[in-house]
Amino acid sequence: MRLIVLGAAAGGGFPQWNSACAVGRRAWRRDPAARWRTQCSVAISADGERWTLLNASPDLRQQILATPALHPRRGPRHSPIGAVVLTNGDVDHVAGLLTLRESQPFALYATAAILDVLGSNPIFDVFDSEFVRRHPLVLDQPLELEAGLAIVPFAVPGKVPLYLEGDAVEVGAETEDVIGLELRGAAGARAFFVPGCARLTPALAERLERAALVLFDGTLWSDDEMIRSGTGVKTGTRMGHMSVSGPDGTLAAFAGLHVERKVLIHINNTNPILLDDSPERAQVEAAGWEVAYDGMEITL
Amino acid sequence: MRLIVLGAAAGGGFPQWNSACAVGRRAWRRDPAARWRTQCSVAISADGERWTLLNASPDLRQQILATPALHPRRGPRHSPIGAVVLTNGDVDHVAGLLTLRESQPFALYATAAILDVLGSNPIFDVFDSEFVRRHPLVLDQPLELEAGLAIVPFAVPGKVPLYLEGDAVEVGAETEDVIGLELRGAAGARAFFVPGCARLTPALAERLERAALVLFDGTLWSDDEMIRSGTGVKTGTRMGHMSVSGPDGTLAAFAGLHVERKVLIHINNTNPILLDDSPERAQVEAAGWEVAYDGMEITL
Repeated sequence: MRLIVLGAAAGGGFPQWNSACAVGRRAWRRDPAARWRTQCSVAISADGERWTLLNASPDLRQQILATPALHPRRGPRHSPIGAVVLTNGDVDHVAGLLTLRESQPFALYATAAILDVLGSNPIFDVFDSEFVRRHPLVLDQPLELEAGLAIVPFAVPGKVPLYLEGDAVEVGAETEDVIGLELRGAAGARAFFVPGCARLTPALAERLERAALVLFDGTLWSDDEMIRSGTGVKTGTRMGHMSVSGPDGTLAAFAGLHVERKVLIHINNTNPILLDDSPERAQVEAAGWEVAYDGMEITL
Repeated sequence: MRLIVLGAAAGGGFPQWNSACAVGRRAWRRDPAARWRTQCSVAISADGERWTLLNASPDLRQQILATPALHPRRGPRHSPIGAVVLTNGDVDHVAGLLTLRESQPFALYATAAILDVLGSNPIFDVFDSEFVRRHPLVLDQPLELEAGLAIVPFAVPGKVPLYLEGDAVEVGAETEDVIGLELRGAAGARAFFVPGCARLTPALAERLERAALVLFDGTLWSDDEMIRSGTGVKTGTRMGHMSVSGPDGTLAAFAGLHVERKVLIHINNTNPILLDDSPERAQVEAAGWEVAYDGMEITL
């Protein structure tokens, strides 16, 4: 199984268009220790010929141009992208679908709840149903993407997309609104893609145990980070993201788990782990974690 | 008045993710005569401090990062972008609105018809109405954007957005679905932005006469270009775009007009004028036209 990180940042990217917090300022001045990152998406393939996108970020066109494996190979119309799988309905995971217009066939997989969200937005009718087939994902049912590559979707604690939030938002429920994906390769390799997660439940921990690779929600370093950096009014908890640090954070939650390779992804522009020289980066690396970057390739 | 071309290509950009036609292949192999271009958007300003975007392309995040004038200057949350004006509801002109989320105030201007389109897509509720005010444009009514900079919207022959097309599409009607913009600077300078136009009517020609600058629909070189390049099944006419060449084309239609500076913009990835060394490029330049590119700056 080959996996390419197309984008490693959370919604807004790094830097974010309207954010010049302490971490973002270093990116704006092109500090080499503050590498720019586009919004979170990953491409996977068994044979290197046909690729599946895990989420379609608003930066998808730029990500395709930066990734030779995704360039058309057989003109005049062709793409190696055969499928897209969505893990939730957030703008940073679905807006890139609009880049995949232009009468190109591919399969679109999402839970029925997320397909309903797309269905209620006529702008996504820009895909002719003749070309783009929408398939509901069934939780905990393996789905073969191609020979030697299957996914298993499962619910993780989260919340509905921001643009569907009402007055009372329930955070942390395990519904079809937010899923994680187990990726199963030919040789029995098990990897996980969980870009958003409100809490590492015992059941989720058990699922991840003994995985070869976990790409996990690295949105925020600390729960009140956006408030303290002056960039927002919400806590991580309120946004459906557990923090990396702290007694209830990701580092602590994974401390007792056996996972061969652990990678933080979906990283918000305020998170100091984005800086190669920060103490927080040193701390996650000391705990056995890597920090994803655009173009990172992993073969299992 | 300062004007920056953020993106000069039509929908899909150059190259387009799934297109490797003869023109596109040169872009994919990074031929220096086939300069990459993002999707069509323009930024204008009178004072260089506050900017208005004309259309919000799917590439907007990348365009902002590439344009220092649009970077935040006053942290932690700031943007020089104060307003966005839409000329129609096509994906390549509205998808970039989704990049402008993140609790940042700006004014959004579009005709009532296009605001209705946005209103029927809940994904655009990602802007809190507290931050983003939607204002209907009234045709032929001047609107001051800032001191020394006003726009006048006017209907041009076109059609509804692709994703709203029914079985019978009327092309060429002058409705609120497609508009052009007159840009009025402080010193009486008149410029025009018309990225999509099905036909140069006598009334439109009269409007453009004696302008200092016209940025005009350069989508296709010839009406059957997409069919002949194997990239599509529609003619330019069917898509609501007049062609650059031919007896009814843009070069011919402007031949009798007095316009100081004429620039082709919104150029499709199949159009040979994108190639610096093509005979078609030589022909448009001989007729007094320039071909827009990303980062092109014009001061009036």
